[in-house]
Order: sequence, then C-alpha cells, then structure tokens
Amino acid sequence: MTDNQDYKEYISILQKAANLNYASAVLQWDQEVYMPPKGATHRARQLATLAAQAHELLTGAHLGQLLNKLASATDLTENEKANIQRSSEDFTKNSKLPAEFVETLSMQTSECFNAWIDARQKNDFSIFAPSLTKMVQLKRQQAALYGYENHPYNALLDEYEPGATVSMLDHVFEGIKQQLPLIFNKIKATPQVNDAFFYKHFPKQAQWDFSLDVLRKMGYDFEAGRQDYSEHPFTTSFSPGDVRVTTRVSENNYASLLWSTIHEGGHALYEQGLPMDQYGLPLGSAASLGIHESQSRLWENCIGRGIDFWTASYPDLRKRFPEQLTDVSATDFFKAANKVEPSLIRTEADEVSYHFHVLIRYELEKALIEGTLEVKDLAGAWNEQYQKYLGITPPDHKTGVLQDVHWSHGSFGYFPTYTLGSFYAAQFYARALADLPGLSEDIAKGDTTRLLGWLRKNIHCHGRKYYSEELCTMVTGSGLDPHYFIRYIKDKYEKVYGIQF
Amino acid sequence: MTDNQDYKEYISILQKAANLNYASAVLQWDQEVYMPPKGATHRARQLATLAAQAHELLTGAHLGQLLNKLASATDLTENEKANIQRSSEDFTKNSKLPAEFVETLSMQTSECFNAWIDARQKNDFSIFAPSLTKMVQLKRQQAALYGYENHPYNALLDEYEPGATVSMLDHVFEGIKQQLPLIFNKIKATPQVNDAFFYKHFPKQAQWDFSLDVLRKMGYDFEAGRQDYSEHPFTTSFSPGDVRVTTRVSENNYASLLWSTIHEGGHALYEQGLPMDQYGLPLGSAASLGIHESQSRLWENCIGRGIDFWTASYPDLRKRFPEQLTDVSATDFFKAANKVEPSLIRTEADEVSYHFHVLIRYELEKALIEGTLEVKDLAGAWNEQYQKYLGITPPDHKTGVLQDVHWSHGSFGYFPTYTLGSFYAAQFYARALADLPGLSEDIAKGDTTRLLGWLRKNIHCHGRKYYSEELCTMVTGSGLDPHYFIRYIKDKYEKVYGIQF
Repeated sequence: MTDNQDYKEYISILQKAANLNYASAVLQWDQEVYMPPKGATHRARQLATLAAQAHELLTGAHLGQLLNKLASATDLTENEKANIQRSSEDFTKNSKLPAEFVETLSMQTSECFNAWIDARQKNDFSIFAPSLTKMVQLKRQQAALYGYENHPYNALLDEYEPGATVSMLDHVFEGIKQQLPLIFNKIKATPQVNDAFFYKHFPKQAQWDFSLDVLRKMGYDFEAGRQDYSEHPFTTSFSPGDVRVTTRVSENNYASLLWSTIHEGGHALYEQGLPMDQYGLPLGSAASLGIHESQSRLWENCIGRGIDFWTASYPDLRKRFPEQLTDVSATDFFKAANKVEPSLIRTEADEVSYHFHVLIRYELEKALIEGTLEVKDLAGAWNEQYQKYLGITPPDHKTGVLQDVHWSHGSFGYFPTYTLGSFYAAQFYARALADLPGLSEDIAKGDTTRLLGWLRKNIHCHGRKYYSEELCTMVTGSGLDPHYFIRYIKDKYEKVYGIQF
Repeated sequence: MTDNQDYKEYISILQKAANLNYASAVLQWDQEVYMPPKGATHRARQLATLAAQAHELLTGAHLGQLLNKLASATDLTENEKANIQRSSEDFTKNSKLPAEFVETLSMQTSECFNAWIDARQKNDFSIFAPSLTKMVQLKRQQAALYGYENHPYNALLDEYEPGATVSMLDHVFEGIKQQLPLIFNKIKATPQVNDAFFYKHFPKQAQWDFSLDVLRKMGYDFEAGRQDYSEHPFTTSFSPGDVRVTTRVSENNYASLLWSTIHEGGHALYEQGLPMDQYGLPLGSAASLGIHESQSRLWENCIGRGIDFWTASYPDLRKRFPEQLTDVSATDFFKAANKVEPSLIRTEADEVSYHFHVLIRYELEKALIEGTLEVKDLAGAWNEQYQKYLGITPPDHKTGVLQDVHWSHGSFGYFPTYTLGSFYAAQFYARALADLPGLSEDIAKGDTTRLLGWLRKNIHCHGRKYYSEELCTMVTGSGLDPHYFIRYIKDKYEKVYGIQF
C-alpha cells in the first residue's frame, strides 16, 4: 500500500462512512427479520440519523479536497487510483443531495416500507398509495437534484447500474418484446410438464435443512453468514465476514423456499468473495446490481435449475421427502423446476415469462418518474399490463401491485437490473463452460468448486474496479449480448419440452 | 411543551445521539444473539464509529452553549428543567473523555468480548488475560480522566449508580459479611430441601413456550419486544417500543431458563414503561442500574420465587411437564426454587449466597482498579475468595473467573448494583404490599396487573428524574435500608426451611 498520507486519510473517512452504512444495514436486516411492530417508529428515526451522518462524511469539504489532491497523485497503485476515481464520481453525485433531503428520504423509506407491509397484509392498495405518492415525489426530486440527460429515470438508474440508460434499456426490452413471445407461445402450444408434486405437503424444517445443505455445498461460508426467514427474501452484507441471506417458506409449495435460497446464496457468494482489505472502499463493493444479479441468477437458474445439479442433488432430496416424491425421477423434477406458464408473482415466474414481469415494472416506474402516470392510477395500469403481456389479471393487489418490496424502499431503477442480470448470467456461464472443460460433469457430481473459483477470480475479486460493460468485455470478450440468453433459454427448453427452436 | 427554541434544539441533538446509541444497541444485541463469528472484526469497527459519533454530538461546543443558556431559562416545565440538569451533569462528564479514548475503549470492548467468548469456550483464562489487562488499564485511565474523590473506583461506579461510593458500598457489604453468614449457617444446619426434579429432562421448546406465557402474564408487550437465546441473558432497549430480552436453556436444569426470563422480563417492563415522549432524553431513560436491578429482582425473587406466584402458575406448569413433576406439589416446587447452598455460578445462586458472589467481584474489581491486584493474579485471587466466603473452589475457569461477561464489556462498577438492586427490590416490594391491600391474593390468582400499575406510577414513569436515593425516599419514605432485605430473606426462609430466625 502507498505511503501517501492523503490516501490513508481518505480510507479512514470512507471506512467511517461504511461503518455507519453497514450499521444501517444491520438495522434494516433486523427490521425485516426480527423487529417487533412497535419498534418501527423509532427505528425509522435511527436509520435516518445514520444515513444523514454517513452522508455528511461522504460530502464533507475535507473529503472533496483529499480527492482532488489524490486525483493527480503519482504514488498510487492501479487499484488505489481506481478507488479514487470511483470515489470522486460518488462524491460529485452525493454532493448534489442536501443532508436534509437524505434524512427525509430515509424517513420516508421507513414509513413507506411499513405502509407496504400493512397494505399487503390487508390486501389494500389505498393504505400504500399516500406513502408511495410522497416517495415518487422524492425520487423525482432526487433525479432533478442529480441532473440527467434525456430522461429523469436515467439519474435513478445510475445508482444501481452505472452506465445504463433508458435508451439502452428500451433497446433490450424491445428485443424481449420481439423474441420472447415466440418462445413463450411455442412452449404454450406444447404439452405441459407435470409439477403437481411441488404442491404436496413439505414440512418447513425439512425444507430448511435441505436449503442449508445446498448453501454449504455451493461454498457459502456459515462462519461468515446465516440464513433467516423474511417476507421478501434478500441478501445483506455488513462486511465480507458477515453476509446474510433470508428466504421464505411455504409448506404447500416446494418451489417457494429452495430457489430463493440458491438465488440469495449466489448474491452472498459474491459479497463473501469481495476483497476484505478493500472494506469500505469502492473496490470492496459490488460492481453494480446487474452484475450482482448475474451471480444470483447464474446460481439459481444456470446451476440450480439445471439437469446437472439435480443429477447430483436429487437422490438426497428424495431421501428427505420419500412420500412427496414417489414416482418422481430426477428428470421429472428438473422439468417441473422449469415449467413455463403465465403467472402473477414475479419471484415465482419461470425464466421466460419472468422478463415480462420486469418489463411491466420498468414501463410503469419510468412513467411514474417522468410524470405520465400517477400513483392513484398505478394499480389499474398494473392490471392492464398483466393482461396485455401475460394474458392474466391479478385477483387482488397482494398478488398484483403490492407483491414487491422495491418501490416501498424507493428503489426505482432497480427492476431492470434483474433482466440485465439474467443476460449477464447466461453470458458469464457460457464463458465459464468454455474456460472450464468438464464443468458440467463436475456439477453432475455435486462439485461446484471450480465454478466458484472462476467467479471469484474473474468477477468477485474486482469489486467496483470496472463498470459492468468493461467487466463483461474483460471476462467474455464482448459487452452485453442478449443472444447468449436466448441461446441458453432455447437449449434449456429443448430439454424440458422437447421442442426444436 | 415549552416554545423555547434552545430547548427544541437541545432535544434534537440528544435524540440524534440516542439514535446512534440505540443503533449500537441493535448491533450489540445482534453480536450476542445472531452474528456469525467472522463478523466480529468489522462489527467492532462499526461499534467504535457509532460510539465516537455519538460522543462527538454529546460533547460538542454547541450543546455546551445550549445547556448553559437553558440552565437559567425561566420558561421550562419542571420535567424540562430536570432534563437540562441531568444533561448538564452528563455533558461535564462526557467532555472529560477525548473522542479518541471513546473509540479506543469501544474497540477494546469488542476485542475483549470476543476474547472472553473464546477463552470461555476453551476454558482458558490465558486467552482472556491480555485483553482484560488492556481493558483494566483503559478503565483506570477513564477514572483518571473523570477525576474522583478518595478512590478511582468511585469514578467508574458513578456511571452505573450515580451517588454511590466505595465508602457507602463498603458499609453495605460490611453488613452482608456480618448478617448473611448467620442466616446462611442456620440454613446449612437444617435438613436440605429436595430439588432433584429440576434436573430431569425438560425439552427446550416446552420450557421456551412456558417462559413466553409467563412474560405475557407479567404484562410484557410482545408487540414491543421479543425473546431470543444468548450465552448470557440480558435485556436491551432500542426505544420503549422495542425492548428485547434473552434467556438461555439447559434441558437438564429447569432452573436455568425460567428465572432468567422473569429476571430479564422485570428489566424489560421498566424499559417498556419509560415515557415514550422523553425518547433520547434523561427522563426517557432508567434512573440507575441499581433501580433497574430492583425491577428485575422484584419480579424474579419477590414474585417469581414466591409461594403466591406458584400457587397460580404451578398447575399450568405441571400440565406441561406431567412426567417430570410427578409427586411434586406447588409447595415442593416453591421450596426447590429457593434452595440455599454454596455454588459456583452467580446467576444460578440462591438469594442468600448470591451476595457473596457480588462481594467477591466487588472486592476484586476494586483491587484491579486501585492497582493492588494484577490481571495475571486474578484467577488465583478469585479461587481464594470463593474458598473464603463460600467454602468451595471452582474446578475450572469457565465456572470460575470466566463465568461473567461484565469485565469483558469493561463494566467495572456494575456488579455492586446487583446487591443494591436486591435491597431496593425488597424495600419497594414491602411498600407495594402496604400500598395495595390484597396484592398477595391477586398474585396467587395469577394477576399482577395492580403491581405493574404501581411500579409504572411510582418508578417507571420518572425515568432519570431522581437519583436512586431520592426516588427510594419518595416511594418508600426512606433511603436504602438493608433491614427490608434481611426481613424479606428471613420471612422467605422461614417458609422454605421452617426455621425461626
């Protein structure tokens, strides 16, 4: 490490802010996992103070001066320079938000989250609408404070996927609108696979125990993490030494728990693989949400819904649920895990129709942010879009517009990263298969060690050193190319439905 | 509330600091309840930052000026004046500690706690000794920074029990040394009660379920709290709306879980009863640790080990454990719950020998702080004292010097508040019985509503408005008077052992 004293001071400020932000993450984790209901009001205030204090550190004149000086320092390593560059970008961005705004946004996030919980429980959108209206106003204000070219949504997108824009996403989703319906319709015209056995009774504890074993086999380190239940599964990190996942359970739907666990496990492996010595610095955090999602989806879909994985894991699963899985072969199970059909819940959707769910959210939130849609009309617009793209209408708001936590968190611009993640995942996985001869055979023996090593070396260890597109090019030889995903999808559904595309 | 703008600004600063301190409390709760081991290093740093940021707010020149102005304000209510007075005392005290010292102490606390966990697991005092040595040095330094009269221990004591001194405590413990051995020896000369049934197999979940019911019946609000497991039971609060307890379980010792739960429940009822509108201010926090402990001990001992409580609760308990409690009557159970015998573990000690455990810790920590005892000699000194006061020697360090978490937390001056708490509890309970005719009969019917109302009205609602001795005088008509405790003890053991004292 450099002897540059400015750099050392820069680290100290960044790590202090990280300590505050990771403390917020602990409070948020607790809020969604264990907090009793009457704790909500003061928890919101505590989170607001933490956000404001971190913001103060990250926008202080002193940090600005240090970054200016360090931008022209000649005694920094390549990684140190990359940290300074990313931090300078962050500083410019953070400085555009007044401290008061940050505190208000944090308070509104807590209020909005609690309103969403309440609205969801009572299946009543009108409980959520006033909070969400305020949230949309704040996000529009935030976009204006950041400044943007062409579309206010670009400013928000930048928080999750630096470099992505509305015009780039419009292009991606245009491709989806053209290609996926063809695949979707071809599958719909084919005899459906049987997944009825998923809906037998699977006791909670036995599902939980199997999921822990799967996490362990993936390489998730339980000395540096844990799994808990929450309403909406998520991964959170307080350092690479404490990365936690949550999942949810349904005793009458086997598909609910396991793939949530594998998905969050993929996120968690990324966080556990970030370089510990870069704690609190850009190179110690994930590249983008799209890249983050590529890790969860690679594990959930390419691995966890692949025939190789179930070749290895199915005998154990069947031993645990002999009655539920009578007469079900590994191939039957693999097919059921990949059943395609229009459905209401994004997180339970198959890999084809999933992207219609994202498309719908993308179009709705873009309209909310540009002001062409009002919250009062959101539930109606939601239902129309579901009819249009999936041919179904939610019977209630709980399975409709209230299903996702994101908007209650103020996370506008987040959803598109799910689709980007799937596309990056397919592209990365194709490269891993090419780089690692015999990988399929490894996986069919239950051994994902080489795959994890490849991800660690090619993706995890870099943190935020590269933008998503740079990283993708470095790893695979080209920027995001949706053809990998289409190829992957066709390959998979040839196996599942016996269709020739 | 006053319109005084200075007062409003004072509240805003205090509440910001409280938000940071309560965030620390969440992180500490998590650390002892759910955190995976590799999270420890960065958790320590996160706690240190929170401590430093709160300290900065609480020692800032701006707060000092506000407090100065407010000290002579004429438009404040009595409660507002009391807040200003307590905050001015705190400010003076806090300002004596440099920010760097606070951060170092916080870091050392985390390190020392982790060393203690490790040492305890491996039953090896030498793992703990180096951390504890540094901790003792820091606490001596802290006493010097605070300044003190007569004894450095007074400076530390003041953090937990404002107004208490070594000379006052020496007097209290002198009384213990004179009176308790007489009672203790008289009991030892009497045929022992039978508690063998406690050591049958009591399944974990059934113990847990009963303990939740007991908490509920005490009036603990589960919408504003929860119970979890931890190595060392404790209560923590993040606001009166989120007050959590922990307990521990042994399937082969029924006495381990239940009375810990009731004890922590007593603490929690105090915290849940603090005035919500005084959040973050002195009047929104507990009077002292001695008063806090009076609440836990009143519930644990005066109620939870009393014949009335078991008259009400025993039938239900027996229904849950019919095999374990065959041929055990409510009276047998009550007697077993009050068995007196010399033992090694403080938290499992009876109400007589308990105070020898405290006396030993008080004398040892006083010696460590005054510098007449070194950490390297601590384990030996511990064993000598146990031989001297209780006639037994720990077979290992886990059941000896490593049994308590307190020193690892840097909590020197904390232990004596346990004895003060027992004494205050007996005095308060005597007054409650006098103020509330028919209270015993209520309790024998399982109804503690009037008792909780009395505690809320006489003790909880005041927060830190009064010093312990003022509060005690206001409630009972006199300052702390150990005769209440002696009377209570004699009454109880007349019932348990049939002795006439």
